[in-house]
Amino acid sequence: MERGPATISFLSDYGSADEFVGVVHSVIRQLAPDTVVIDITHEVPAHDVRAGALTLARAAQYLAPGVVLAVVDPGVGTARRGVAVEVGDGESVLVGPDNGLLAPAVAMVGGATRAVELTSEAHRLAAPGPTFDGRDVFAPAAAHLSNGVALTDLGPEVDVAGLRPGMMPLSQLKDGALAAEVLWVDRFGNAQLNVDPGDLEALGGVEGTRLELRWGETRRSAVVARTFAEVGPGDIGLVVDSYGLVAVVLDRRPAAEELGIGPGDAIDLAPLEDDPGAVTAVTFRERPHR
Amino acid sequence: MERGPATISFLSDYGSADEFVGVVHSVIRQLAPDTVVIDITHEVPAHDVRAGALTLARAAQYLAPGVVLAVVDPGVGTARRGVAVEVGDGESVLVGPDNGLLAPAVAMVGGATRAVELTSEAHRLAAPGPTFDGRDVFAPAAAHLSNGVALTDLGPEVDVAGLRPGMMPLSQLKDGALAAEVLWVDRFGNAQLNVDPGDLEALGGVEGTRLELRWGETRRSAVVARTFAEVGPGDIGLVVDSYGLVAVVLDRRPAAEELGIGPGDAIDLAPLEDDPGAVTAVTFRERPHR
Amino acid sequence: MERGPATISFLSDYGSADEFVGVVHSVIRQLAPDTVVIDITHEVPAHDVRAGALTLARAAQYLAPGVVLAVVDPGVGTARRGVAVEVGDGESVLVGPDNGLLAPAVAMVGGATRAVELTSEAHRLAAPGPTFDGRDVFAPAAAHLSNGVALTDLGPEVDVAGLRPGMMPLSQLKDGALAAEVLWVDRFGNAQLNVDPGDLEALGGVEGTRLELRWGETRRSAVVARTFAEVGPGDIGLVVDSYGLVAVVLDRRPAAEELGIGPGDAIDLAPLEDDPGAVTAVTFRERPHR
Repeated sequence: MERGPATISFLSDYGSADEFVGVVHSVIRQLAPDTVVIDITHEVPAHDVRAGALTLARAAQYLAPGVVLAVVDPGVGTARRGVAVEVGDGESVLVGPDNGLLAPAVAMVGGATRAVELTSEAHRLAAPGPTFDGRDVFAPAAAHLSNGVALTDLGPEVDVAGLRPGMMPLSQLKDGALAAEVLWVDRFGNAQLNVDPGDLEALGGVEGTRLELRWGETRRSAVVARTFAEVGPGDIGLVVDSYGLVAVVLDRRPAAEELGIGPGDAIDLAPLEDDPGAVTAVTFRERPHR
Repeated sequence: MERGPATISFLSDYGSADEFVGVVHSVIRQLAPDTVVIDITHEVPAHDVRAGALTLARAAQYLAPGVVLAVVDPGVGTARRGVAVEVGDGESVLVGPDNGLLAPAVAMVGGATRAVELTSEAHRLAAPGPTFDGRDVFAPAAAHLSNGVALTDLGPEVDVAGLRPGMMPLSQLKDGALAAEVLWVDRFGNAQLNVDPGDLEALGGVEGTRLELRWGETRRSAVVARTFAEVGPGDIGLVVDSYGLVAVVLDRRPAAEELGIGPGDAIDLAPLEDDPGAVTAVTFRERPHR
Repeated sequence: MERGPATISFLSDYGSADEFVGVVHSVIRQLAPDTVVIDITHEVPAHDVRAGALTLARAAQYLAPGVVLAVVDPGVGTARRGVAVEVGDGESVLVGPDNGLLAPAVAMVGGATRAVELTSEAHRLAAPGPTFDGRDVFAPAAAHLSNGVALTDLGPEVDVAGLRPGMMPLSQLKDGALAAEVLWVDRFGNAQLNVDPGDLEALGGVEGTRLELRWGETRRSAVVARTFAEVGPGDIGLVVDSYGLVAVVLDRRPAAEELGIGPGDAIDLAPLEDDPGAVTAVTFRERPHR
């Protein structure tokens, strides 16, 4: 990286209906013409910092070294800081609001080595209004960094320990059951939990065995499987997903929708009691609200 | 721009579900391999020339110099002309149907200096059918321009005064109130009006004061604020948005949806009468149809 | 193509809400930094191999020579093969699951000249789970091919005759009527049929004449037209669309929605009987389920 990073990876909650994403690309194109911008996603639900932080953390280990531009910013226009956070001793820099959005991704790649607050007027666009910092503050900062501008040119250094932490829910063992949470429902309806394969094993859940799932008033038996295809029709599966976490799945059908679970919902995993009633066939219902 | 523009900024109503956008990119890739294509948005509502024109106008001042390719074209296959419109004495060229789509953006960047009708068969693709001019006529024209082909190689010059004008609604003062219109509702539910800060001041609306909003049978008091965060919960704000126009907003909630207003709706702004009844708390209702 | 293809055209059912597409771009960016990735579409309905195959086939003839990366893969994690299929004696290579997704596009551009199964561990990413072959298997294969890696380095050659065929429905003449099917409904509601202009002529349908359309219990008269604008308000048109196939259209209104037809629906075309009752005005109804 002698000549500065040449890739900007860009995530936001801007959606695709408006020109926001295109305008940010256009600003970068003019400030850093040789930089390639890769869109991670712009369909983070509007103002949902938690969902954006989780999405960025999932993607983090796959992103090209360089600059990460991330904007989910319900506090735009308030006193919340804009920051650039260096990781890997300069391999990459994450740019965005200091509201917890960047924190899980930063942690995922080894933690922050330095950070600055984005205060330099010389590295911003003049803004007609105070509400589009992605265009006026964050994109210019990302472009300048991509051009090789020094981190500390963008503003004063801030203590990395003072950056706003993300709120990643941890699963915990309680009364022999694992109290977990749905982190994310993907396009195919798979519900990723904050549970890793080691947690499953601690409950006795190895491939081919069954565990009990509990959410709301519902209790269901689920099979621990390696692939979707090993989950029978009408059965529920627990598989290690493509990020190494455990997901609740159905074979080729959307589990979250059919089971009525969504991001943030609590779900418990427990050893299956020797009660044959717990293995009754699954009756699917519509997910009430989503 | 000795070697011709190297950026094509692309806006359309093609949506993302079909392969239209990808095919246009592919056509450009083959005709102008060194050109970078930046997608502004492709989610302009189908056939909505007004919405497309407003989106393009908002983006215009931020676009990289070069070619702008814009296609919202309900009249494809009819006698409506395809045109390339030069602005800034050649800094940029806008390519698209002559149906008003380009006009507000052209005006925004200083007006047209030259224009041609796209008639050259040598600069088109052979088309199996007459319904995809974006692929067969406009994208090739944009690619050739980006390669440095002269504007006048694409067809005969036409009078720039004869280009179809856009229809930008103007607000007007009537009986002491400003009759305005919702131009655009963004992803976050903010409703941009055809009102600029000077119009507000003319009504006595400066930061911290209140004005009355009237639409349909509804009358509401709104506070003139600098940021979303200065608008209290349950209150309505009037803020200067990121394009320098006045928008009706709520703090972190979608104003348009909750107030039942949408693009094209008439809305009046007036000094608040000294009637305490006008400042009652807002009762939100679902927006009936959208 | 001395230095290997430099364009990857990318189609999937990954949608835009998750980071899947961005992660695939990021993987390619790191393995093949000089390659340009063009997104065809990622909004193929989840797991809908038929829709993906039709989309890819429509786009095929317009794609830049190079690598095509296509992933609609309900069988991920099962024994279905991943393949790279060479066409045009090396002009392009299509990479994806061997489940029929690639077949119609391969046929469209002249058929496969060679194919390999993607088994080389050296050309994959180490995967935490077996469910994201787009990221871990297909994208790396596409990137390596784009870098000039030989097809046969990716795995053993397989018989091109043994590749899974696509299922393209053929229209057929039966009792003087043409039994056809809706292949695709585009963004604008036009319903493309598996009918070409020659089929229409065989029924006597030339420009300006009328044919009868029959689907479900419905019979309607439709005019054979060259453009949307030639179809009167309230009338139904049959036009040759931008891919050279016949589509059922309305002028500037969504035909599929208003007539209640969708992809896979059977629709018959027949000469119009001399029954004036068949030409009654169209009463539109809501499409019941979609």
